[in-house]
Amino acid sequence: MSSAHRTAVSTSDTDLMLPGVMPIAHASLNAELRHCIDYKTKPLGALGGLEALALQMGLIQQRTQLRLEQPQMVVFAADHGIADAKVSAYPQAVTVQMVLNMLAGGAAVNVFARQQGFALTVVDAGVATPIPQPPRTATEHARLLQRKIGFGTRNMTRGPAMTSAQAIAALHAGLDVVRHLPGNVIAFGEMGIANTSSAALLFSRLAEIPLQDTVGRGTGLSDEQLKHKLQVLSDVHRKHRAASTPLELLSAMGGFEIAMMTGAMIQAAHERRIILVDGFITGAAALVAQGFCPAVVDYMVFAHRSAELGHRLMLTHLNAQPLLDLGLRLGEGSGALLAWPLLVSAAAFLNEMASFESAGVSQATKD
Amino acid sequence: MSSAHRTAVSTSDTDLMLPGVMPIAHASLNAELRHCIDYKTKPLGALGGLEALALQMGLIQQRTQLRLEQPQMVVFAADHGIADAKVSAYPQAVTVQMVLNMLAGGAAVNVFARQQGFALTVVDAGVATPIPQPPRTATEHARLLQRKIGFGTRNMTRGPAMTSAQAIAALHAGLDVVRHLPGNVIAFGEMGIANTSSAALLFSRLAEIPLQDTVGRGTGLSDEQLKHKLQVLSDVHRKHRAASTPLELLSAMGGFEIAMMTGAMIQAAHERRIILVDGFITGAAALVAQGFCPAVVDYMVFAHRSAELGHRLMLTHLNAQPLLDLGLRLGEGSGALLAWPLLVSAAAFLNEMASFESAGVSQATKD
Repeated sequence: MSSAHRTAVSTSDTDLMLPGVMPIAHASLNAELRHCIDYKTKPLGALGGLEALALQMGLIQQRTQLRLEQPQMVVFAADHGIADAKVSAYPQAVTVQMVLNMLAGGAAVNVFARQQGFALTVVDAGVATPIPQPPRTATEHARLLQRKIGFGTRNMTRGPAMTSAQAIAALHAGLDVVRHLPGNVIAFGEMGIANTSSAALLFSRLAEIPLQDTVGRGTGLSDEQLKHKLQVLSDVHRKHRAASTPLELLSAMGGFEIAMMTGAMIQAAHERRIILVDGFITGAAALVAQGFCPAVVDYMVFAHRSAELGHRLMLTHLNAQPLLDLGLRLGEGSGALLAWPLLVSAAAFLNEMASFESAGVSQATKD
Repeated sequence: MSSAHRTAVSTSDTDLMLPGVMPIAHASLNAELRHCIDYKTKPLGALGGLEALALQMGLIQQRTQLRLEQPQMVVFAADHGIADAKVSAYPQAVTVQMVLNMLAGGAAVNVFARQQGFALTVVDAGVATPIPQPPRTATEHARLLQRKIGFGTRNMTRGPAMTSAQAIAALHAGLDVVRHLPGNVIAFGEMGIANTSSAALLFSRLAEIPLQDTVGRGTGLSDEQLKHKLQVLSDVHRKHRAASTPLELLSAMGGFEIAMMTGAMIQAAHERRIILVDGFITGAAALVAQGFCPAVVDYMVFAHRSAELGHRLMLTHLNAQPLLDLGLRLGEGSGALLAWPLLVSAAAFLNEMASFESAGVSQATKD
């Protein structure tokens, strides 16, 4: 049932062709899945959020026996010109340092990817410096994919973060990254000093929510630093008020990693893969993807509610029920990997639990 | 540092001897663990609840490299005389049916135990009927342990649920069950039609919280059925108002599985094992255990906040931060198993993540 046709996005730039994404709704399959879930040996609805998750995955995979195969963790890394405006607690150099840490296997995302059996790909979407070839042993842990659109975006306090051509190139690179990955689940993560700034701006514009409700402390700003960040972003917000389509917003205030994730999510949904969304920045990419293809959200499982101020509101706006709420604020895809076992559990109960009939268990009495 | 001395509980019955439980607090180890956690390559506190979990497990295990070995899932099953008063949506026969389902490998707890690599033991603490020997193939999935104290408790609307001697026998059986288990983590679950009634009563009395705030829908009562349950339990509450020590409360309003879990938790803490607590009924056992040995709670990881009305209040009373909040209300230990990968992740980040120094990553700037 997967549609191979492509949708031209209504933008001045006709170079952007995105694959079509089908909604997952399917009345008879929905009823069949609901029946399977309700006749398992448990009180009705007793597995709570896990039941909704099993239902969604069944609709995505179009079957009642779920398969989760070769799950992929992809971390998109890029730098942001706006880091010059001191909107992050960390210096820009940390982006490449953390990419190297990931390639060496020492970051949180490596630890959790090993634990959960995920293949890890780190995509250089636009880190500000060249990334040295990792040592040979590092390839055991993570694979580096070079898809650099530029050496960091421009400082959006002075002009658009990227050109329209760069945004399109990043979206297309994202489609391409996913096309070459195996498996039927893709977890999304990111690394990029100052990228909560882009995420907050995109969220504010796409959801029409005041900036002060979307701008947070990122990796740990003080009160004073947060005030400065809000001031800087308010100016950017005003400067780029003419941008309105998803492509224009991405160009004006996006990041290379956000644009590339957007494309990658659309391709993943086009191929009916499960999209595991990490936190606030991957959430912003999800919003942009929704702007291009509304049905893309059907394929998304939202891993957690982070400690970042705007994330609660973002999840509400997306009508998402996150699986975890652990006060995480690390990014990298760490939250996505922490939530992963719940997807495995949801598939396992649907696939393996006995039904009342098969186990000879009595059902509830109605008064 | 584990203390081998035994504490005689101040009760009229001197037959009850419980092992001593040491608090886990340790200033210098705490500082050492905090330092390890803070110098990992991540913003300060960015792993949220996982950091508190790693710290707690380090204090329990008295080391900075954590080991999680041979995790055990133990389901304590028993019947409750008060089921006669129609306080549950399910008939009493479901307890033994579900025990058989567990022994055959078809219940939720089996599915999740297989997924997470837990050994599963089902303890007959007092099911109302004999449990037929499971078929030979079933032993692959779960092991039945016969520790039956009686064929269900008495109906506590008419008198105490059990004698003091039975309560002591159940506590001692619990100690013994744990003594014979390998591994350093024990997850607790339960099965027993009508056992939310015992749990709600014990919670109300031990925490001095009004009964209407502790009585919930259990496995799925209607409004009318819930009203009836509250009426029945109010009468029981009044009838047994003279009971006041943990042992008296257990005897008057407990269940065999709750009393046995209480003993098992105390033994697990005595041996410095991690105690993984499932939901509302295991939480009630945790409260009783705390009544006997206050430090036992130091060893407990609370897996989730369930949909049962009183569970939120219970967790607040225990000063617990549950790991999951998925609207579960199944029992069996299912929530404990769903939360387990987060313990593995907490241990993994503490054991394996690089530090800022080892990875050459810059730290945050302070203004």
